Amino acid sequence: MQDMITVAVDAMGGDHAPAEVVKGTIDAIADNRNIKIYLVGHNISINDELSKYTYNKEQIEVVDAKEIIDLHESPVMAIRRKKESSIVKGLKLVKEKKADAFVSAGSTGALLAGGTFVVGRIKGVERPALAPFIPHKKGVSLLIDCGANVDSKASYLVQFAKMGSIYYENVLGVKNPKVALVNIGEEESKGNSLVKEAYALLKQEDDIQFIGNIEARDISSGKADVLVCDAFVGNIILKYTEGFGLTLLSMLKDAFLQDTRSKLGALLLKPALKKFKKQLDYTEYGGAPLLGLEGLVVKTHGSSDAKAIKNTIIQCKTFAEQNINHKIKQKF
Amino acid sequence: MQDMITVAVDAMGGDHAPAEVVKGTIDAIADNRNIKIYLVGHNISINDELSKYTYNKEQIEVVDAKEIIDLHESPVMAIRRKKESSIVKGLKLVKEKKADAFVSAGSTGALLAGGTFVVGRIKGVERPALAPFIPHKKGVSLLIDCGANVDSKASYLVQFAKMGSIYYENVLGVKNPKVALVNIGEEESKGNSLVKEAYALLKQEDDIQFIGNIEARDISSGKADVLVCDAFVGNIILKYTEGFGLTLLSMLKDAFLQDTRSKLGALLLKPALKKFKKQLDYTEYGGAPLLGLEGLVVKTHGSSDAKAIKNTIIQCKTFAEQNINHKIKQKF
Repeated sequence: MQDMITVAVDAMGGDHAPAEVVKGTIDAIADNRNIKIYLVGHNISINDELSKYTYNKEQIEVVDAKEIIDLHESPVMAIRRKKESSIVKGLKLVKEKKADAFVSAGSTGALLAGGTFVVGRIKGVERPALAPFIPHKKGVSLLIDCGANVDSKASYLVQFAKMGSIYYENVLGVKNPKVALVNIGEEESKGNSLVKEAYALLKQEDDIQFIGNIEARDISSGKADVLVCDAFVGNIILKYTEGFGLTLLSMLKDAFLQDTRSKLGALLLKPALKKFKKQLDYTEYGGAPLLGLEGLVVKTHGSSDAKAIKNTIIQCKTFAEQNINHKIKQKF
Repeated sequence: MQDMITVAVDAMGGDHAPAEVVKGTIDAIADNRNIKIYLVGHNISINDELSKYTYNKEQIEVVDAKEIIDLHESPVMAIRRKKESSIVKGLKLVKEKKADAFVSAGSTGALLAGGTFVVGRIKGVERPALAPFIPHKKGVSLLIDCGANVDSKASYLVQFAKMGSIYYENVLGVKNPKVALVNIGEEESKGNSLVKEAYALLKQEDDIQFIGNIEARDISSGKADVLVCDAFVGNIILKYTEGFGLTLLSMLKDAFLQDTRSKLGALLLKPALKKFKKQLDYTEYGGAPLLGLEGLVVKTHGSSDAKAIKNTIIQCKTFAEQNINHKIKQKF
């Protein structure tokens, strides 16, 4: 029998909470008898949703949290003041080792601030990093950091490279993943002072397979497995991927509806287009972990539906089973 | 009769030089009797290409340049040492007012360095900026800066906003274009120290219509006409647009070839897809000007074909006719 893993889930986070969060949780446990969930949030709202389903009651426990951290609140202030929020309570379950992981579609800023204040950093880690997967032609790359470290130092970037490499290797089973520094040119001499300094440090690192700089035009070709950058650049790439992808799909749709001939063609292409859209769909890849914390905290997209929540919960299982945090600790 | 305008063209720059450059030049003058071209580069190679066409000899003059600046040379060193290069000679024609503009598909770094050293900055302009158009759902946005100012100051960003606004208004005829600062959140408090400082300065500017921060996910929706950022971020967005666009098209192609049904659908969709590809095609939008110089210097994509060269030459006409440099000078 496999070990049981326990995941705390923020029932109040994201655009479709609590309905989709609860549904995703139900779906996750349906296939996985060895997952226990703490649904953290408004007692009554959660139980209302739960009452719609038949499920194994032993696998879900509701943890009441009376407050919600709003997307527009100052993250640091919110974490300090709202001790009864679903985010603070969920993070505490991880801190107290009652849960192996906390999953939330709520405020990224609050999760990042709370991750550091409540759960705490792994000794030696200067800054935890948010590391989502982004799609490329042949699979996915890990983009690290997309978090809140907006004025990064070169030493942070080196740590991101090491943590990202361990995560990628263990989650995707790719031995010695290729790590590249996102830059405006391939040559070592290119870039701003931050990346130049980071380059010099990265090439001395024995723990990673550093393949040098990568230009943004090569990101989608899948040249690198782990893309290292400061959070400002990471955030731009992540959100641009999302926005540009959606825009292209909508432009494509307009083009396909322009006349009868195109409409007929689009009808025939429906299965092919569905497959194409699936490749671009972020919900397929689960959430983004905050690497470098003394426990697993995973941020899922604000517009996560049940499928995204389910995939993220299952992703926590891999993280725990692969003992990724232990492996990170050994390198710091 | 319209005024004659004179454009110096780097016949040696880009992946398809001199053949496509010469062809683009021929195409540009065929429709425009009031354009005079200096083709700058190897005398013999250029004349070889020219001999393939019938054209009005009065509109083209070859200016011999014995050296070529390679893409991998240090731009500053190359500009200093290679006085006989097509780039230095072309820029000199602008400096000496013998040409209204210089167009090159060669080394961006050398053009930027040469633009400042040879042509010189407009008084008051701290840094010239490279400003390409990128496609969005309903048209194009100007992305400024994508040049070489990798460690920008907030004051540069304000100048980019002003120059970009004037350029957009005059080239696209959009009165008071919407100017936004590329950032990782919409709120004023978001971002790294550079953008926070720039935000504070931009909102005090009366000369522009500053609409605040724009997140990368909204870039493709066309929320803003002018996107202001430092060159590192601009370069990432520009090259990612290109790479991601190409990757999506290739993924789409793979999906369309997967079975007979899809192949038939794709055949019917051919005209629609052609239109879609055209919207994404950078060559449609001409080249990117270096704003802030005492003359017009336009960089076109390294893989420019004849059509891109032609469109860029014609774009110089608009720039000169609208007297854009004079309008920039008035604001500095």
